[in-house]
Amino acid sequence: MTLPHSPLQRPPERVLILHNPLVARSAALAAEMHAYLSSQAGLSVQQAVLGEAEDGAGVAGQDLIVLLGGDGSMLRAGALAARHGVPLLGINLGRLGFLGEVPPEEWREALGRVLAGDCWLEARMLLHVEHHRAGQVLGSYEALNEAVVGRGALARPVRLKALIDGGELTTYVADGLIIATPTGSTAYALAAGGPVLPPELRNILLIAIAPHLSIDRAIVLPQGSTVEVIVRTDHQAILSADGQYEVPLADGDAVRVCMSQFTVNFVRVRPRHYFYTSLVQRMQQNPSADKVSK
Amino acid sequence: MTLPHSPLQRPPERVLILHNPLVARSAALAAEMHAYLSSQAGLSVQQAVLGEAEDGAGVAGQDLIVLLGGDGSMLRAGALAARHGVPLLGINLGRLGFLGEVPPEEWREALGRVLAGDCWLEARMLLHVEHHRAGQVLGSYEALNEAVVGRGALARPVRLKALIDGGELTTYVADGLIIATPTGSTAYALAAGGPVLPPELRNILLIAIAPHLSIDRAIVLPQGSTVEVIVRTDHQAILSADGQYEVPLADGDAVRVCMSQFTVNFVRVRPRHYFYTSLVQRMQQNPSADKVSK
Amino acid sequence: MTLPHSPLQRPPERVLILHNPLVARSAALAAEMHAYLSSQAGLSVQQAVLGEAEDGAGVAGQDLIVLLGGDGSMLRAGALAARHGVPLLGINLGRLGFLGEVPPEEWREALGRVLAGDCWLEARMLLHVEHHRAGQVLGSYEALNEAVVGRGALARPVRLKALIDGGELTTYVADGLIIATPTGSTAYALAAGGPVLPPELRNILLIAIAPHLSIDRAIVLPQGSTVEVIVRTDHQAILSADGQYEVPLADGDAVRVCMSQFTVNFVRVRPRHYFYTSLVQRMQQNPSADKVSK
Amino acid sequence: MTLPHSPLQRPPERVLILHNPLVARSAALAAEMHAYLSSQAGLSVQQAVLGEAEDGAGVAGQDLIVLLGGDGSMLRAGALAARHGVPLLGINLGRLGFLGEVPPEEWREALGRVLAGDCWLEARMLLHVEHHRAGQVLGSYEALNEAVVGRGALARPVRLKALIDGGELTTYVADGLIIATPTGSTAYALAAGGPVLPPELRNILLIAIAPHLSIDRAIVLPQGSTVEVIVRTDHQAILSADGQYEVPLADGDAVRVCMSQFTVNFVRVRPRHYFYTSLVQRMQQNPSADKVSK
Repeated sequence: MTLPHSPLQRPPERVLILHNPLVARSAALAAEMHAYLSSQAGLSVQQAVLGEAEDGAGVAGQDLIVLLGGDGSMLRAGALAARHGVPLLGINLGRLGFLGEVPPEEWREALGRVLAGDCWLEARMLLHVEHHRAGQVLGSYEALNEAVVGRGALARPVRLKALIDGGELTTYVADGLIIATPTGSTAYALAAGGPVLPPELRNILLIAIAPHLSIDRAIVLPQGSTVEVIVRTDHQAILSADGQYEVPLADGDAVRVCMSQFTVNFVRVRPRHYFYTSLVQRMQQNPSADKVSK
Repeated sequence: MTLPHSPLQRPPERVLILHNPLVARSAALAAEMHAYLSSQAGLSVQQAVLGEAEDGAGVAGQDLIVLLGGDGSMLRAGALAARHGVPLLGINLGRLGFLGEVPPEEWREALGRVLAGDCWLEARMLLHVEHHRAGQVLGSYEALNEAVVGRGALARPVRLKALIDGGELTTYVADGLIIATPTGSTAYALAAGGPVLPPELRNILLIAIAPHLSIDRAIVLPQGSTVEVIVRTDHQAILSADGQYEVPLADGDAVRVCMSQFTVNFVRVRPRHYFYTSLVQRMQQNPSADKVSK
Repeated sequence: MTLPHSPLQRPPERVLILHNPLVARSAALAAEMHAYLSSQAGLSVQQAVLGEAEDGAGVAGQDLIVLLGGDGSMLRAGALAARHGVPLLGINLGRLGFLGEVPPEEWREALGRVLAGDCWLEARMLLHVEHHRAGQVLGSYEALNEAVVGRGALARPVRLKALIDGGELTTYVADGLIIATPTGSTAYALAAGGPVLPPELRNILLIAIAPHLSIDRAIVLPQGSTVEVIVRTDHQAILSADGQYEVPLADGDAVRVCMSQFTVNFVRVRPRHYFYTSLVQRMQQNPSADKVSK
Repeated sequence: MTLPHSPLQRPPERVLILHNPLVARSAALAAEMHAYLSSQAGLSVQQAVLGEAEDGAGVAGQDLIVLLGGDGSMLRAGALAARHGVPLLGINLGRLGFLGEVPPEEWREALGRVLAGDCWLEARMLLHVEHHRAGQVLGSYEALNEAVVGRGALARPVRLKALIDGGELTTYVADGLIIATPTGSTAYALAAGGPVLPPELRNILLIAIAPHLSIDRAIVLPQGSTVEVIVRTDHQAILSADGQYEVPLADGDAVRVCMSQFTVNFVRVRPRHYFYTSLVQRMQQNPSADKVSK
């Protein structure tokens, strides 16, 4: 089963504007947007800073989150929106903006369409990531793009034994292993050589970073799989999720990753085929190269 | 929706043994197997040569096809079994044998289990491939692994414009474009750098062969997609399906590929997790490389 | 020892203009250039069609060949110029133009500089390629970019046993093996995943096309190495050189490749660092991608 | 000019045995070897721990260093031997051992041959690596395999502007950039997708780790080139050399790399073609894969 595309059930009545103050323009734009939305009849509007909202206060019960920020902000807002089941509209203030739906100069038109219900929801899976040591769970994380288990600052590989549903797959000697969602297939996993996956898949993607005489092809797992990665190292090893955490791993620690119980609903105003078109534009090299000379 | 794993509905009563006379040992083994099966009560056994069976006579109405051959034979038998809805058990006489379930020395045990119903069926998608020229369909093919649109014998790239559901994706300058099933993800597509996909997916995989300043990452398409590839070339271009055909393409010809209406049911006696384990064994390099020295 | 960069020894007095009539604009431009050069005092100018010149008549004794054509024309003219020891200036009418020095709109300025001796010569190695069968040499070729030993039109791999100076390296199962010069490192070998080599190296580069569970990294050989490739196949196999020939290989045939006794001297009017700058521009993707968002 | 292969000028009279106490067996083997060498007439033998020898005391004036350790020890001993111009024989106690010449069970035979002069010297280039900040050189390092400029522990890319001899090449968005010697081409650079280079080349190899929509092909530079990498990051960035250091880089820092004035002479008792044979054995996957089934 793939994740659904669905209509917005009813026009939003309670809107939360989140912005990342570290991103230029986001505060000014948030204020402008707040004024605009407050002028709309029948709309309750709240505003908060992304970092402060992350304990979740004020998020539950909203009909819509509008996020102003870059890719990093979007990842954090995505996990937040997923946990509280609130649809998320991203205004892209970053430079890559694979996740942000709306360029900043189009926010007014986009919000107008969303308030009128002229939009759709695209559900995307998250990962549930657990850090295990000696039978204890030391921490757990939800990730929209990927979890990475790998080396720390020293440019030296670690050994990563990967198990699928308890059965050994292989041992990687590598900088790290990326365990990605389909959403994450266009992020770090793409840089490591991975394929582009349709966002609606519920399958986990594995790909190693700089594998040394180990398997260097991406492996897509069946739905419902749990991946376990056991770290063997004599130097620093790290767990990251969405490039946001930096959890030290000890030799013998395990990281377990499965599909999260949460999904995030992105609000979309673009046509349903936007994904491949915009993706390929970014991947294309020298445009004149599509011609062969004799 | 992924393709189902299912039990064999009832023990097979009508069995067709197919062998490829070009593969060493296959005739002798087929005769041995025929004798064994004929000695089983309540079983109707027929035997044929793979090439002769391909018009389908004698295939319809069977409960089970047993194929003795290599990967090429299996691909041909797979398309045949799919068209007639007959489950297929492969005895692997080839050297790679990703598709063949049973090594030749284990055929007796495997057949015993299948006759007792102690097995399961793994459905796999096929591609429906059409060759279009000037509005006409010149030919159509079913493929279990992949269709390839590419250059002929001269080692010079062709231009391949790829469209997804009618929308332009990109133009590849490459030796060819592989349009693969998940089954085919471990065949030619793997050699071209593609990911391993779970066999039960219904998604088409695109990957270029030796792309010249064009997109070199694999792209997995949403379920239900139709790919169209339009060839621009001033030298020989070819359509292959499962490495079995060699259809000349003219400049401007289009090849359209979508999921076939047929699926093939492979009879499996191995545990359900056989796929990744056996795959990774084949991909592994220097086994001592999984250790890092200080 | 790397190949030398050297000055032009004396201003050219005998110039041969070659053009490829299949390339648009080349005849008109050749005529224009002929008129221009004929008006220069003390210059003997001849003009020929590339195909006709390839027997070498009229090439020997020239001081300069000016070639108007695309990459394919340049490769043929390069081998011709090398055999006769005549420097070659390329006017690039193709679309990629890695080898062609001068864009067509700048030919007048470039020729002016060359006639004044304001230019330099860049020597590049060629390959000497021999086709062996049962102890006989069936043919031999000089190649500026690469020799390719591989499959024919059918999209099915061949087995290629590679030996270096008589010692076995490995056996590739692949579409083909590219044996390239440093010049060829930016052509087919690049598409197959190879590195960019400095043009002045005298080292042969090996890289497989779509290797199936075989070595997929490029291997650069020591200077003076001879590569031998022995083909094992039950279907069509082909030897190509610079994408120009299509020599059928039988099972068991060997192709031997070493550095040619000839080098080609390209006339350059650009600064000596042109190579990497122009190369990287072509390889670059999405220019906005050089910025990371937070 | 490539680096020379040369004979040992005269049988060694002063031998220094180095071992790494962190590597199992190295102390016991060093003692055994010390006893053996001390029993040879006319030989002065000294013994030290690798870490203590790294200030160089006791190294100058030796005729031969014998190193017992893994790849990491060998890299450190290589830089040390290079600085003092002493030939180095490696007894490989590690698991990969690309650099260590002699397996531990063969040390007696190997040393016997070296003392008899029945061996040869293989010179290999080192890198000279400088860390610049605001016009100051903060540190400098010699590296036998590679320098890496990249991210720290957080799995998030950095921006790396690369200049060749002062001219801008490109800006990578990546985990890091590997600047490798030919010796290093079989180490980290290989894991990142790079080519294998002949050890005697004097050319620097550049390859990015997990480049995000940036150039992902290896680039080999002309002899004599200086590479400069300028770091742009808002999080931790690190310079490593041979996986041995962990130098923090600030936003705007530059790392300059050129060929070192030092080369290391490895003592070889194997035939001169050992390099490719032993390399390919390690890179080979599934040995049965060199056969194609029909």
